[in-house]
Amino acid sequence: MDQREKAFGWAARDSSGLLSPFSFTLRANGEEDITLKVLYCGVCHTDLSTIKNEWGNAQYPVVPGHEIIGVVTDIGLKVSNFKIGDIAGIGYIAFSCLSCENCSSNFENYCPKLVPSFNGTLPDETTTYGGFSNKITINEHFSVKIPENLPLPGTAPLLCGGITVYCALKNYGLNRPGLHLGVVGLGGLGHLAVKFAKALGMKVSVVSSGGKREEAMKILGADSFLVRGNSEEIKAAQGTMDGIIDTVPAVHDIVPLIGLLKTHGKLLMVGSPDKPLELTVYPLMSGGKSIGGSMIGGVKDMQEMLKFAAAHHITAEVEVVPMDYVNTAMERLEKGDVRYRFVIDVAKTIEAE
Amino acid sequence: MDQREKAFGWAARDSSGLLSPFSFTLRANGEEDITLKVLYCGVCHTDLSTIKNEWGNAQYPVVPGHEIIGVVTDIGLKVSNFKIGDIAGIGYIAFSCLSCENCSSNFENYCPKLVPSFNGTLPDETTTYGGFSNKITINEHFSVKIPENLPLPGTAPLLCGGITVYCALKNYGLNRPGLHLGVVGLGGLGHLAVKFAKALGMKVSVVSSGGKREEAMKILGADSFLVRGNSEEIKAAQGTMDGIIDTVPAVHDIVPLIGLLKTHGKLLMVGSPDKPLELTVYPLMSGGKSIGGSMIGGVKDMQEMLKFAAAHHITAEVEVVPMDYVNTAMERLEKGDVRYRFVIDVAKTIEAE
Repeated sequence: MDQREKAFGWAARDSSGLLSPFSFTLRANGEEDITLKVLYCGVCHTDLSTIKNEWGNAQYPVVPGHEIIGVVTDIGLKVSNFKIGDIAGIGYIAFSCLSCENCSSNFENYCPKLVPSFNGTLPDETTTYGGFSNKITINEHFSVKIPENLPLPGTAPLLCGGITVYCALKNYGLNRPGLHLGVVGLGGLGHLAVKFAKALGMKVSVVSSGGKREEAMKILGADSFLVRGNSEEIKAAQGTMDGIIDTVPAVHDIVPLIGLLKTHGKLLMVGSPDKPLELTVYPLMSGGKSIGGSMIGGVKDMQEMLKFAAAHHITAEVEVVPMDYVNTAMERLEKGDVRYRFVIDVAKTIEAE
Repeated sequence: MDQREKAFGWAARDSSGLLSPFSFTLRANGEEDITLKVLYCGVCHTDLSTIKNEWGNAQYPVVPGHEIIGVVTDIGLKVSNFKIGDIAGIGYIAFSCLSCENCSSNFENYCPKLVPSFNGTLPDETTTYGGFSNKITINEHFSVKIPENLPLPGTAPLLCGGITVYCALKNYGLNRPGLHLGVVGLGGLGHLAVKFAKALGMKVSVVSSGGKREEAMKILGADSFLVRGNSEEIKAAQGTMDGIIDTVPAVHDIVPLIGLLKTHGKLLMVGSPDKPLELTVYPLMSGGKSIGGSMIGGVKDMQEMLKFAAAHHITAEVEVVPMDYVNTAMERLEKGDVRYRFVIDVAKTIEAE
């Protein structure tokens, strides 16, 4: 008789991306593993792209969700960092080799053997099912402790969206007080970039397609707001920014953004458009400017980011929704109709098939 | 009676780019100026692009040449750094404001008011005529001393080509012993990048369209040579380079180059293609990699670069040609038919109209 534990979640079965209830067998909790009862899970654009197979890597059925907060219900014999009852978080990474140059320098996020926490296959050939489910098992190394003072729903999006912007700013040296940062796109990542940058003591200008001026300045605390299509506003801000974090996951013109940078300024790309952008080289050369990419962050940085967030009371602005709202949430996310991240109240709203 | 000094050079009159003898009035030697009798002048791709008006900014007649070495024949009352008889060098910069943030931090090359040493208009409204002429007057700040042990013809190309690669490596931190550098394109800039990087103690791999393997390794001292079109060689080198300096001033595919970089690797662009390149963002994100631009260098770095070159016996490989060969030299440069830089023996071969 198979004694492994049953679990259930919501899965996409094909590239329609439609999610529906799905039962599966939970991976057995190994010596170094912890098992969580999932409480909350954020909805990231990567979930949407994956369930629709936009990147051609979907392994259906796909249970998405990689901004996961839960309570520890089981621990392996060798687990040292968690005890039953702890509140733990899981982000994008479910496995990395822990021995390569990247892993050795706390950049598990760039390990060539990285397995994501959903839509992945672990070395033991089990499939990873994400946080749109009632339970999840993971090696403790890839889980983080959630600081006590952080409200859980708004903390879930820190585990992918938050770490992505935090590490981009940190690794490119754009995390210093007094620097002027542009934030392009005011969605899940963008609004967190504003919050982190303000907490870091930076001057923040939101560069957006428009419509969120009031919110950006009053609620999020941005210092100024530029409409991308407003040539006067953009012109007046030429050469004023030390860095820009560009969160837009669609094709757009980056040349005007490069113009906003000071000499030696950096444009950081944290969204992945599905088609190539046009890169005119001269504007980079003539100002010693650069374009850098960044993707999530390592586990050590994740814990550091959460500590910083707790100290500065940073959480995402979220719309908490029940599990059976997820298909509507995905539709609305696709249209950018969310302020600023959907979080599924998994524990209270998921039901077995 | 006009007492100003007459000078003569070779100028392009229109976008055919054809150069022919041209007389002009030398700018009067001001209090802070020095005048040089031009000895040698290198031929850079920027000269070619300008005389053909490829960037739409030619102010005909254009006397090109901005890798200039000469002997000081006149000094202004306030000149402190040069005396008559000194051997001096002039690069791309004839003027900058000396008060902006860039100038104040020794990056005159990024001053918004920069006037180039040819095809430019100074604040006193005189035109700058470059080194394809017998005499040139310049503010001493923008001139450098040529170290005694450097052979002059091979030193001329250091004043634009050399400083360009030296500063790109320096400003992006790719000038440390033990790092692995790729050099894309083995022309004037590329061959100097190999020499500087080897002198800096780096491992150097040339990435080229092919044909110069023997020269790259035996004459220039590269450690390896990869043919851009050879997918086996390129595949074997994936993820091995800390940085790449890309000198190719034409449209080309940069995605395979990004693949050659290690995590956090940097692709430095020092050539300006006339059309945009395609930038696929994901390969940057998934390795925390960046693309940086760089353009020439400031005066302080220029003097530092020459000191380094003198200490390590670095000069360009040059083909010294007479002034009246310049049109043929331009044709050959356009085809990439030069090992590795043309230098005009101005003093011995220029003649008045």
